[in-house]
Formats: sequence, structure tokens, C-alpha cells
Amino acid sequence: MSSKRFSGVLAPVITPFKEDLSPDAQRLAAHCQWLVNQGVGLAVFGTNSEANSLSTDEKIDLLDQLIASGVDPALMMPGTGSCSLTDCVRLTAHAVKRGCAGSLMLPPFYFKPVSEDGLFAFYAEVIERVASPDLKIYLYHIPAFTGVPIVVPLIDRLVKSYPENIVGIKDSSGDWGNTKAYNAGGWPDFRVFCGSESLLLQNLQHGGAGCISATANVNPAAIKALYNNWQTAEAEKMQQQLNPVRNIFQSFPMIPALKAATSLYSDDPNWRRVRPPIMTMSDDQVSEMQSQLEALGFDMPELSG
Amino acid sequence: MSSKRFSGVLAPVITPFKEDLSPDAQRLAAHCQWLVNQGVGLAVFGTNSEANSLSTDEKIDLLDQLIASGVDPALMMPGTGSCSLTDCVRLTAHAVKRGCAGSLMLPPFYFKPVSEDGLFAFYAEVIERVASPDLKIYLYHIPAFTGVPIVVPLIDRLVKSYPENIVGIKDSSGDWGNTKAYNAGGWPDFRVFCGSESLLLQNLQHGGAGCISATANVNPAAIKALYNNWQTAEAEKMQQQLNPVRNIFQSFPMIPALKAATSLYSDDPNWRRVRPPIMTMSDDQVSEMQSQLEALGFDMPELSG
Repeated sequence: MSSKRFSGVLAPVITPFKEDLSPDAQRLAAHCQWLVNQGVGLAVFGTNSEANSLSTDEKIDLLDQLIASGVDPALMMPGTGSCSLTDCVRLTAHAVKRGCAGSLMLPPFYFKPVSEDGLFAFYAEVIERVASPDLKIYLYHIPAFTGVPIVVPLIDRLVKSYPENIVGIKDSSGDWGNTKAYNAGGWPDFRVFCGSESLLLQNLQHGGAGCISATANVNPAAIKALYNNWQTAEAEKMQQQLNPVRNIFQSFPMIPALKAATSLYSDDPNWRRVRPPIMTMSDDQVSEMQSQLEALGFDMPELSG
Repeated sequence: MSSKRFSGVLAPVITPFKEDLSPDAQRLAAHCQWLVNQGVGLAVFGTNSEANSLSTDEKIDLLDQLIASGVDPALMMPGTGSCSLTDCVRLTAHAVKRGCAGSLMLPPFYFKPVSEDGLFAFYAEVIERVASPDLKIYLYHIPAFTGVPIVVPLIDRLVKSYPENIVGIKDSSGDWGNTKAYNAGGWPDFRVFCGSESLLLQNLQHGGAGCISATANVNPAAIKALYNNWQTAEAEKMQQQLNPVRNIFQSFPMIPALKAATSLYSDDPNWRRVRPPIMTMSDDQVSEMQSQLEALGFDMPELSG
């Protein structure tokens, strides 16, 4: 069973857009291959992928194109959550059918407050409609964006009802006490990912499975190196070295900052584009970020020629 | 120009579901016709329509079926907002093409905080892609659900850039100061709707256009009567009579309460169904609500045989 569950480091893969703001499957596939070469998994259609700015049709089409171009679905944990039951079922079923090893599933995030019974009913309905032992759901706790927290009693009820389908969670609250509580849940082989590498060492020390972090788009190898070496004497130092890079990106709007860095280090201005309501960073902001990154000796190897 | 803009009372029409939770177009059309007979307009696909639990395909299909069954699109202001630029453009363009007189447009509500520039860019992109003088957008301020407020400076910028397309707003904040500020915006023929009939008289006295209220699904004629008579000596008394009905529905979870009442008065248990994460009310809750409504002498004429 374990072998079918994720551990390690995954990137919520940023989504490149063409001039008309349609998704650019070719650039996305190339970025996915680069990330895989750097040792991280692919949480495509995450928050930092601007997935909620895409339609379900666009996501299905992108997933098909990625797989057709050779990206391995066994390394993919696409975001398949939606406010809409129909969309969530459709995209999740498609991801399972195409062999994706997991689905990162936002709760329905329009109505609030919603009851624990209502959230349970939503996930149960999705699981029963997808109806596949290959469905591996990673719940997604990101209350600042959803307003709909995933609380321990809900997880407990879901894991007990669907032990083969509810296999982990991503905690993007940034609240270590909450991540710790997930790790202490006592659910067999339940995979807890923190949403930032700044908590990675702590998470692993408490039984966590890894991290799914925005900055794994730009700094994958170093984050993965900490994951690989967390039980060594070097781990604390490696964690300390990751934090300044994270802090730079966090001091700018995250999505345009990730795209600006990718654009800079690949010398490809197309990477700058975002869909509204996200806005690109100004040239001044990009220069400022670049100076800060260069002062740290930051690089994106292979991209930077 | 005026004649093409909404005023009066509209219901965010509740959406009936079949046993498999697919939308029931026939029951929806019948409820729409009942609402029209009671004198109110049709804000289908609103919050209380559970529209965010439907896919864009389901909404397009429902809209087509409603129109095919004789519901007048000139009375319809469908909710066409979405987090996804693509979905918003697609549904809005379809509604315009089918002759709907307006679109009630949520902001993209996943990312937060979003900048005013980002929201402006989103609406601008939608308007430019739909590219029709028949596009009449009513903005939708419902911060408790979206976390993305529609502030006066944003409206000002949108109205000045797109005076023929940005024609009004629904204020579901329940904050009278905010509704008042919208009415004081000074934008030519801008239509301000409050989100509850409890503010209807006040809104009309300050130049507002009417209300788009959940309880217009169940108490349409009385709300419309206040609208028709707001300048008479009876108005204050009529407002006072509306409030107790509103208060009963508000004391239960709104969507299941509206559906339970419709089910009771039409003697049709099919109306009870909701999509998760919304949950139906228990039979005990329904009985309690029924007793309270009967104590007020409440009725849904024509539905109740």
C-alpha cells in the first residue's frame, strides 16, 4: 500500500500562458520535466498553478497533453477540487483514469460556514461517484483562501469510512500546531505534507511525509536535498539555508514572483504572464527580487543555460 | 437606456435536483413561472440557487431548457461569475446571446487578498471578450462568502471605463452603510439592489433599484407589493410585515429552509434535495419552521393547491 502513496517534495506547478492567456501545454510539459529531473513530484493544478482560474475542460486538456508529451502520471498529484460537485467528480475521475497517483482535493469553498456533515457528504459523494480503488485523495487545508478548514474529526471520519481513498493531507495553514495535530492523528500510513519547506524538517521529525511548496517550482533540488538528508547532522543547516530563499519569494506576491524568476532564469518572457485577478510584478519589483536572489547566490540550474 | 436595466424584486431562484442530484429543469421552469406570476424577476444561478455547486455545462444546459420552456430571458439575471476567467466568459457570453437582460457577476473568489487592479483586469477581460453592447453586468458584493469585497473606487473605475456594461450591483453585505455608499456613488442610472428585503424600503428611499432576496423565492408577492407601494403611507407597515417572515427563514440554514418551504407548500418532496456541502434540514427542523410560518399566517399561493 505504502508504495502507492506520495512522500517527498512536490511542486504546485506554475502554469504558463500564451499571449491570449490560454494555457501553454508545451512550456508546462518542459517545466514539469525540469522539476522531475530536479527530484520533485508534480502537484499540477494547485493554488500556485492558478488552477482556479482555469476551467475543468482546460485542466482535462492540459493533463492529457502533459501525459501525451511523456510526463509520468505516477509522479502527478493534480488538484481536482472544485466548488462544484460535478466538476470535482469529472476531473478526479479523469485523473484516476489517466493513472495519476493522487488527487489534491480542495473542499467546496464557496459556501461558509459549512457543517462537518456537509463536507463529509461532499467527499463521500465524490468517492462513491469516482468509485475506484485507485482514487487516492490528499485533502487540502488552506483556510486563508477557502474559509473552509479541514478539521481532525472530519479527517478521522473520512479515513475510517474510506481508508483506501483518503490517504493524506496538505496543510497550507502555516500553523505548525495544526500540522502537528494531523501527524498525531494515528491514521495508518496517512501522509501529512506541509505547505512550505520552512516547516519541512519539523514535519519530517514528527512523522510527516514531506512538503508541497510553491517555491519547489524554483528551488526544487535544495528542498529535495533536505528531504533526502533530514536524519543527518547537516539537516538543520540545510533547513536554515532554504529559509532565506523562501523569504524572498514570500516578500513578493508569490505567483508572479515564481513566474518572474522562471522567466529570468530561462530567459523566456512568456513565463511572466498570469491570468487576472493575479497581476504580473512590475519591472522594478522583478529587478529588486533578482538583486536579492543574486545576493544569495541563487540559481535555477539547467534553466539558466 | 433605462428600460434595459433591472429594477424591482428578483429571486435568486432555488434549483431543484433529481434523485441523482442532477438539476431538474422542468421543476425549475415551473418555479420560475410561478415567481414571474407573483411579479418578481429571475436571478437564476445565484448563491441561494447553489449555482457554485453546478458546472458551467449544467448552467448552460439549464438556461437553454428554461428558455425553451417559455421562461422569458428579458426577466432573467443569471449569475455568471466564476473563479475561472474561461468559465465566466463562456457562461456570460451564452447568457447575452440567449437574450438574458443582465448578468449578476461574482468576483473571482479563490485568491485573496486580490488587488483592485487585479479585479479591474478580470472584469475588463470578461467585458472585452464578451464584446457585446447587450452585456449588462450587475456586480455582486457578498464578502462573507467570497472574501473579495467590491469597493466604491473599483466600481467608479469600472463604470467610467465601461458605462454601457457595468450597470448595477447587488449588496449582500447586510451593511446598510455600504448600500448607502453605493447609492451615493453618483453613477448615471446605476442600479443598487440590496440582498435582503429587510433593507428594501430604506434602499428605495435612498435611490436604490430594489432587492434580490433569497426569501423572494417563497414570499414574492408581499415583497413586490412593498416595492410597488414604497411611496405610500402604507410602506412602513408593509416593511414591518415582511420582516418576521424573513426572520424565520434566516433562523434556519437558508437554502434548505427555502427548499423545505417550497416542498411543503407544493406538497412535493423532491424540492427538499440539496447538493453537498449544503445539507437538508431534519424533519424536526422542518416541522418547527412550519409551525412558526403558520403562526404568522404565511402562505405560498397557487403552490398550496
